[in-house]
Amino acid sequence: MNFRTVIHAVSLLVLMLSAAMLSAVPVSYFCGDGTVQFLSLLLCSLFCIVISGTGVAVTRTGRDREFGFREGFLAVGAAWIVMVLFGALPFFLCGNFTVCDALFESASGLSTTGATIVEKGMPLRNGTVLQAGIEGLSHGLLYWRSMLNWLGGVGVVMLVLLVLPGRSSSQMLYNAEVPGVKTASDQVTPRMVSSIRIIAAVYLLLTAVTVFLYVFGGMNTFDSVCHAFTTVSTGGFSTKSTSMANMSPLIQWTAIAVMFLSSCNFILVVRFLVQHRLAFLSDEEFRFFLTIILIAGIAAGLMLFQSSSAVPFAGESSVVLQKLEQSFRNSFFTVISLISTTGYTVTDYCQWHMPGAVMILLVVSLCGGCGGSTSGGMKCVRILLVLKQAASELRHCIFPRALTDIRLNGIRLESTVIQKTLGFMTLYLMILLLTAGLLPFLCEKPVDPLTALSASLSCIGNIGPGFGKVGPAFSYQWMGNGAKVLLSLAMIAGRLELYTIIVLFLPSFWKR
Amino acid sequence: MNFRTVIHAVSLLVLMLSAAMLSAVPVSYFCGDGTVQFLSLLLCSLFCIVISGTGVAVTRTGRDREFGFREGFLAVGAAWIVMVLFGALPFFLCGNFTVCDALFESASGLSTTGATIVEKGMPLRNGTVLQAGIEGLSHGLLYWRSMLNWLGGVGVVMLVLLVLPGRSSSQMLYNAEVPGVKTASDQVTPRMVSSIRIIAAVYLLLTAVTVFLYVFGGMNTFDSVCHAFTTVSTGGFSTKSTSMANMSPLIQWTAIAVMFLSSCNFILVVRFLVQHRLAFLSDEEFRFFLTIILIAGIAAGLMLFQSSSAVPFAGESSVVLQKLEQSFRNSFFTVISLISTTGYTVTDYCQWHMPGAVMILLVVSLCGGCGGSTSGGMKCVRILLVLKQAASELRHCIFPRALTDIRLNGIRLESTVIQKTLGFMTLYLMILLLTAGLLPFLCEKPVDPLTALSASLSCIGNIGPGFGKVGPAFSYQWMGNGAKVLLSLAMIAGRLELYTIIVLFLPSFWKR
Repeated sequence: MNFRTVIHAVSLLVLMLSAAMLSAVPVSYFCGDGTVQFLSLLLCSLFCIVISGTGVAVTRTGRDREFGFREGFLAVGAAWIVMVLFGALPFFLCGNFTVCDALFESASGLSTTGATIVEKGMPLRNGTVLQAGIEGLSHGLLYWRSMLNWLGGVGVVMLVLLVLPGRSSSQMLYNAEVPGVKTASDQVTPRMVSSIRIIAAVYLLLTAVTVFLYVFGGMNTFDSVCHAFTTVSTGGFSTKSTSMANMSPLIQWTAIAVMFLSSCNFILVVRFLVQHRLAFLSDEEFRFFLTIILIAGIAAGLMLFQSSSAVPFAGESSVVLQKLEQSFRNSFFTVISLISTTGYTVTDYCQWHMPGAVMILLVVSLCGGCGGSTSGGMKCVRILLVLKQAASELRHCIFPRALTDIRLNGIRLESTVIQKTLGFMTLYLMILLLTAGLLPFLCEKPVDPLTALSASLSCIGNIGPGFGKVGPAFSYQWMGNGAKVLLSLAMIAGRLELYTIIVLFLPSFWKR
Repeated sequence: MNFRTVIHAVSLLVLMLSAAMLSAVPVSYFCGDGTVQFLSLLLCSLFCIVISGTGVAVTRTGRDREFGFREGFLAVGAAWIVMVLFGALPFFLCGNFTVCDALFESASGLSTTGATIVEKGMPLRNGTVLQAGIEGLSHGLLYWRSMLNWLGGVGVVMLVLLVLPGRSSSQMLYNAEVPGVKTASDQVTPRMVSSIRIIAAVYLLLTAVTVFLYVFGGMNTFDSVCHAFTTVSTGGFSTKSTSMANMSPLIQWTAIAVMFLSSCNFILVVRFLVQHRLAFLSDEEFRFFLTIILIAGIAAGLMLFQSSSAVPFAGESSVVLQKLEQSFRNSFFTVISLISTTGYTVTDYCQWHMPGAVMILLVVSLCGGCGGSTSGGMKCVRILLVLKQAASELRHCIFPRALTDIRLNGIRLESTVIQKTLGFMTLYLMILLLTAGLLPFLCEKPVDPLTALSASLSCIGNIGPGFGKVGPAFSYQWMGNGAKVLLSLAMIAGRLELYTIIVLFLPSFWKR
């Protein structure tokens, strides 16, 4: 194992993280945080820069040495874990969070989960409690939370690809980090790095447009920037403890659109924006994704409308229209927030009192967005492939001698691809059950099975809120330290599509 | 489609069911049921015999006509649905159950699920209520419930194989009904029918031995026969509303042993009993099954023991040993009852107040017994195969150029077998979610997500009791008629391993 190059790559990434941390210092200063807050954030950033800069400098000579598959896995896995540790420093040093709280918040941020342990009355390291909840955090920390989401989104992938040596390892890391089922058409252009630059540019552009739209919708600049960071990355951290609930309808519709866009395959988005090609309209995964959203959104919307109409009202058409708009805004916001694994909330869906709608939301949470997007979860392309496999089995039952190819966008899939996909899904479900099974032992407080399952799903799928005692009305603060560490690991493993992290725990990985 | 032969086969099976129904008449007479009860059961059986006998006689000439795959599927699917209808008649006519209740009880019986709608205060068709619960049913009906379980176990498979024409269709039906992953070594002997006779003989023998052991343990003859029927078939109907809770420890240990034996691969059991071959010791599925049971049983047992020791006691060793025995009896009984998909209960595990133990039980319920047994669920062999597939994917991550064969008992599995297995599991999970999603709309009463998921799992996996409001303390009576019909369908589909029933709903199945 070529540790020198691995350490070099990891240090370089942490250096970039530290640079991003430094950008929080002027925000903290100009938004009027106290001097202590501002100075501690500055010192924290400088500390990170010095440490990671030293790492880069010391390992500089190792750059052109061998860098294979195993080095790649180790670099990605180690980079994520080390970045979570460094990302937790501001919470620990400037916010006085306890160690596990800071780690959880950092892991949740970088993995774009958006689950939080910050709540009213949260105990701090110095013996006091956080009176005001999320709104009680300094502007610097709020900005840092959102920045973690933004970096964790598609940003880190970009960085890895631009930093790490070698073309083949870049391709491999792209496969490890940009999720979904791979087909030959997935390369944007033959030249990887230039296409990555295009994606990065689109990501930046989308963020800028979102900031503008939020400001236009009536948000102040600080909140707009923070929310744009967490919407485009499908992260879901908010600067308000009520998430998006008290925002104007215009802002909520903007969030719906951006969350939707960010959970589509980025390669299709790039093609549409740069090459003006309507390829996404014929893409099977996109159609499937859209179909799920429409069915789930309309079904939940109708149920919400019906239950809101249960109370008789004057019958003026404007009121009906208003209720209709509100019902569909709430349902589409919730459905897209969950399927894109963002995790913003506008209503407490646990209080909907419609078990049918709740089941829809559970299924939607399990799906996740499209492959090659910033969203988490199992990804629609996998669900689609499994449905095709099941349909092919059924065809095989009726016509035992018929050929039953499985095609995606007209291209016949190799049986190894199908096997890999099905293997991933079952591994995903098993890790889900395992995490849910371990959770009650680490929680220190009684956990019902729904909460255990939902918390695991929410963290592995990088969603954020769940059902039961991790619903929109709760934070993860009540859980024990062990549970917080377990869920932090689950978030990172989920973000890296399991294999990258699990591989590091196998003895055979470390053998020569 | 050769309907004549299909109708002939179905009629023949219903005739056998009716003959079994007739055997309940003397039981009813000698156990002292009222004359009305006894006579109505007699008339009901005679009615079934006349109808099915006519069907057999009318279609007799069609026997030697073409009988292919599609006829086979239709015959099995139609036979199960028609048998459920006929099996419901005694409940409807003699027990005054409502239509949906009778259907649910019959489907639950034949599919060896063991979920019941009989409870204290259950409304009857004649406007009265069933005061005494299960104990209030006549002996004839209690016997009939157990008989349904017994026939539904491995019995019906036997009947189908002996009744239907053609060697190839027998093999096909064996594949459709006797579940699990097929390898070449699964044929007991080259001659199918004779091996089936051996299995049937073992099934009868096991039932007889179980009756004897229950009588020896202190049960009366009637209860012994009924419970033996439902233990060997891993059905789980009991003649007591408390299930096995008030039985002696000896009886409970007997039930544990028989449930375990009945959820092992019957071919291995036959080989052991007839040929004295210890093949099962080296069988990977058997080892895996045993490992799950031991881990789950010991873990839950220790937790139960710990929570029972929380109350300080005298410290005499006999008391400690007694508590230890009781804890492990309860835990192993519950684990084996759920993994074998029997569904007997000795304690209300929903009241264990140990979320860790409850998660273990949930996972165990999902597994099911071994392939080729009378148990339901996903089957251990499939879980094992999926674990192997996931391990092979991980190996592939580290050594991209290594060959990663998947072997079961030393035999390399074709990739189509793996694909089929993984396809089945995902279809299983999807049908599970679909049923759980539809349930709240059909239940008429509010259903929490845990209950919805658990009820679906319990019915598709042919288990019986579940968690939440379908836990051991409840019956399925509170659900709406729509939910009862949906769950009845789910039970039959689960019993026939999904494909056989789903195929019948596809338009392409009916095309020439």
